[in-house]
Amino acid sequence: MAALSSIKDNCRKVMCIGRNYADHVTELNNARPKQPFFFLKPSSSLHLPDEGPVLRPSGVTTHFEVELGIVIGKRCQNLDTDDESEALQYIDSYVLAIDMTARNVQDEAKKKGLPWSIAKGFDTFCPVAGPIAKSKITDPHDVEIYLKVNGKTKQEDSTGLMLFRIPRQLSDISKVMTLEKGDIVLTGTPKGVGPVVTGDVMEAGLRIGGEEVEEARLRVE
Amino acid sequence: MAALSSIKDNCRKVMCIGRNYADHVTELNNARPKQPFFFLKPSSSLHLPDEGPVLRPSGVTTHFEVELGIVIGKRCQNLDTDDESEALQYIDSYVLAIDMTARNVQDEAKKKGLPWSIAKGFDTFCPVAGPIAKSKITDPHDVEIYLKVNGKTKQEDSTGLMLFRIPRQLSDISKVMTLEKGDIVLTGTPKGVGPVVTGDVMEAGLRIGGEEVEEARLRVE
Ligand SMILES: [Mg+2]
Ligand SMILES: [Mg+2]
Ligand SMILES: [Mg+2]
Repeated sequence: MAALSSIKDNCRKVMCIGRNYADHVTELNNARPKQPFFFLKPSSSLHLPDEGPVLRPSGVTTHFEVELGIVIGKRCQNLDTDDESEALQYIDSYVLAIDMTARNVQDEAKKKGLPWSIAKGFDTFCPVAGPIAKSKITDPHDVEIYLKVNGKTKQEDSTGLMLFRIPRQLSDISKVMTLEKGDIVLTGTPKGVGPVVTGDVMEAGLRIGGEEVEEARLRVE
Repeated sequence: MAALSSIKDNCRKVMCIGRNYADHVTELNNARPKQPFFFLKPSSSLHLPDEGPVLRPSGVTTHFEVELGIVIGKRCQNLDTDDESEALQYIDSYVLAIDMTARNVQDEAKKKGLPWSIAKGFDTFCPVAGPIAKSKITDPHDVEIYLKVNGKTKQEDSTGLMLFRIPRQLSDISKVMTLEKGDIVLTGTPKGVGPVVTGDVMEAGLRIGGEEVEEARLRVE
């Protein structure tokens, strides 16, 4: 398991699953997808805990989306499986991530049929904490992820609520594009997303059986 | 100037400019953008001349878009310039590229307000030739790029027709996301895009003052 800074340096793409928790789909008035869909964030958006605040570009409504992230451990191409233990072999370790989103830019893009890359891709728009050893998360579909803003809980749900589980995600992505060692997959966000403004402090984390996992603690302004 | 294979290996993101030639905007019935917009292709889609045919995934209408590509030579962040000589300092070399596009997937995404990452991101969807030395292209806004299918010319226009020139492209991108050494920027495609099916042979290239540039020749099935 590499240090977080080398995970950042070696990541070439960040693939994010959209609309993967039913209540989050509803809160943004989106249609529930019939199959997983995904989009890219640039690796240049990865942001380490010691790198300062997340940017709030002017004119941009900046939303948080806490997500369980997977660091890919080996090349994954055309994976065809529903078998969890087989799919999990492609996982090196986990990170906790915030998929920061320029929501008004994304809304405009959706209206005009334009790509999401700008809305999702600003520098600092992917804060990460970790890594969390694979051995520590025996079941990635049974952890709780949460995010607080200024001490107030905004998101807090089990990854068991994912509409499409990790094997399906890896399978669908890898049939379009090869996942390479070091790539990161963000597995979607539960309900409760919302805006942060300059000065707000986000604290995110992960619990297993009610116990906080220390290395997943993420605190960013 | 690195070899093409190491350009592929070291590229983390491919940024593509959309709708950057007026007649191409018209042919796809799109709106002419008021400012450059851009989207990501994954570096895993880069495809070398000796790596075999471009994939035609089943159910996908595969379109070619020939483009002049820039290999970034040094970190570019918040670049604020209209000055061509200043902007060109960030260029290491050039490649000729085909921005392969799953057009029906993209049309569907545009209709539904979904991201373009799948439509643009399949493995093999970014064939490249080169590199072309920076010294050889004294004015990147005055070269001719072309693409033939089975010997018949489909695209053939001057990069002088770009709606937004390279300094503006680098400036706008770098205000959203840092361009790193080794990243590739595709500068948009002229009119004439269209489908290819299995067995079709694409030949693309670049001419300066009517003279073919040998290292830019790209032949792919
Ligand atoms: Mg998300
Ligand atoms: Mg890649
Ligand atoms: Mg294009």
